[in-house]
Amino acid sequence: MNRLCIHTITTKPWTTEQCIERYAKAGVGGITFWRYNLEGRDPRAVGQQARDAGLEVVSLARGGFFTGKTEADRQKAIDDNKRCVDEAHGLGAPLIVLVCGAVPGQSLAESRKQITDGIAAVQAHAEAANVKLSIEPLHPMYADDRSAVNTMRQAHEICDALGSPASVGIAADVYHIWWDPELKEMIDLAGKTGRLHAFHICDWKTPTTDLLNDRGLMGEGCINIREISQWVDATGFAGPREVEIFSTKYWAMDQDQWLAKIVEAYRGLQLG
Amino acid sequence: MNRLCIHTITTKPWTTEQCIERYAKAGVGGITFWRYNLEGRDPRAVGQQARDAGLEVVSLARGGFFTGKTEADRQKAIDDNKRCVDEAHGLGAPLIVLVCGAVPGQSLAESRKQITDGIAAVQAHAEAANVKLSIEPLHPMYADDRSAVNTMRQAHEICDALGSPASVGIAADVYHIWWDPELKEMIDLAGKTGRLHAFHICDWKTPTTDLLNDRGLMGEGCINIREISQWVDATGFAGPREVEIFSTKYWAMDQDQWLAKIVEAYRGLQLG
Repeated sequence: MNRLCIHTITTKPWTTEQCIERYAKAGVGGITFWRYNLEGRDPRAVGQQARDAGLEVVSLARGGFFTGKTEADRQKAIDDNKRCVDEAHGLGAPLIVLVCGAVPGQSLAESRKQITDGIAAVQAHAEAANVKLSIEPLHPMYADDRSAVNTMRQAHEICDALGSPASVGIAADVYHIWWDPELKEMIDLAGKTGRLHAFHICDWKTPTTDLLNDRGLMGEGCINIREISQWVDATGFAGPREVEIFSTKYWAMDQDQWLAKIVEAYRGLQLG
Repeated sequence: MNRLCIHTITTKPWTTEQCIERYAKAGVGGITFWRYNLEGRDPRAVGQQARDAGLEVVSLARGGFFTGKTEADRQKAIDDNKRCVDEAHGLGAPLIVLVCGAVPGQSLAESRKQITDGIAAVQAHAEAANVKLSIEPLHPMYADDRSAVNTMRQAHEICDALGSPASVGIAADVYHIWWDPELKEMIDLAGKTGRLHAFHICDWKTPTTDLLNDRGLMGEGCINIREISQWVDATGFAGPREVEIFSTKYWAMDQDQWLAKIVEAYRGLQLG
């Protein structure tokens, strides 16, 4: 259970304080905050509250969206990512998750260039704050307007293009990458290069009725979560397994019952 | 216009006869039939009807679904694909499009093996009938239950595994492959190896509200259709551009108006 972390978006109806209290009470080991959790609050106080409750502050979601049609848009994104780094620093979160961005109609190659440039522009600020930048490859069904980085290989290529700084790595989410025939190889490479920053779990339902908000609970879909977890652990990764589930259906449930289901499903995976 | 072909599923409310008559009247060059078009009809008569109306019979959609949990299921699929080949032969269609199949929870590697075996089992029958088998890589969002072949590279790998028979190739649909960073390279390879059997077009809408039936008309989405078409033509491919659009929204329209929109959108692409 100490490796179980939950993203607050998973229990979206709860306030920041409710998430901290209920996760801790349920024996969850860690928490990943979303930026909306910090609205009107001091990040340092929120981080302290979580640690006082016994939770590890795992990461802050989410930075990124570096793409834009104008230079002004892209500069705005860079400034916002620096603020995100500051918030993570205040929270005591060691990393921020980057959903890198895409602009419908702009070539994916151009978007990837803008993403690389954007990360480069934030990197020094992040290093000074001791906050890592974790590129999350997003499923190709989000290539239109959410991320032009759709495979682990592409995330590696961006790390390479940046000169492989220790502060830039990858957040691997099974939802986005499970289908990738190169997955094991790319996870191995992430281990060898020290780029494997984070590991997210959920499941892919059949049928999936919404592109965004119909993710499944571990065990109710087709993703080989146990196998992928073994690949991740085999690299030496001993960090949290972060449950991140966007689900209109589950958000409509009693959230205490939903949390109990998550814990039960996580135990059912028997990841050790 | 002679390179414009339409899949009958695009105008799903129309009968087989309506599709033939209306496409021909609109000046469309070719038609791809779906198997439901042949129900209760003699494929030879349907093919003749289309040719008499001045339409090229481009292909028959769709075979495939070679995966299954039991050998009996897989044998059933092989038998059905042989029937599909016979129907294509009757129609006078030079190829059948394969949606290769996937079983939720079965490993994608196992599914790919079953797909390779399934195609191998149908190949001699297809060659005898002078019908080509065209693997259509499907978008990774269909990897759960529709196809474990999700990239052009994987389709090439299956062709390689089969010993590159001339009868097995690839149907490239922009909807499924536009996001792929290797796309140009894989299209070039398909040209060089003689595997580029078919080219399908439509568009990816932002937002996409349904995983299956919310495809866009060319020009209303983010796909670089003109660029991909140029890559395809640069291989020497001079075959039809097949419009295949599943859309609850467009199926609800007056289908004559919808057909006029398709023709207008195709002309607007100025593909030459």
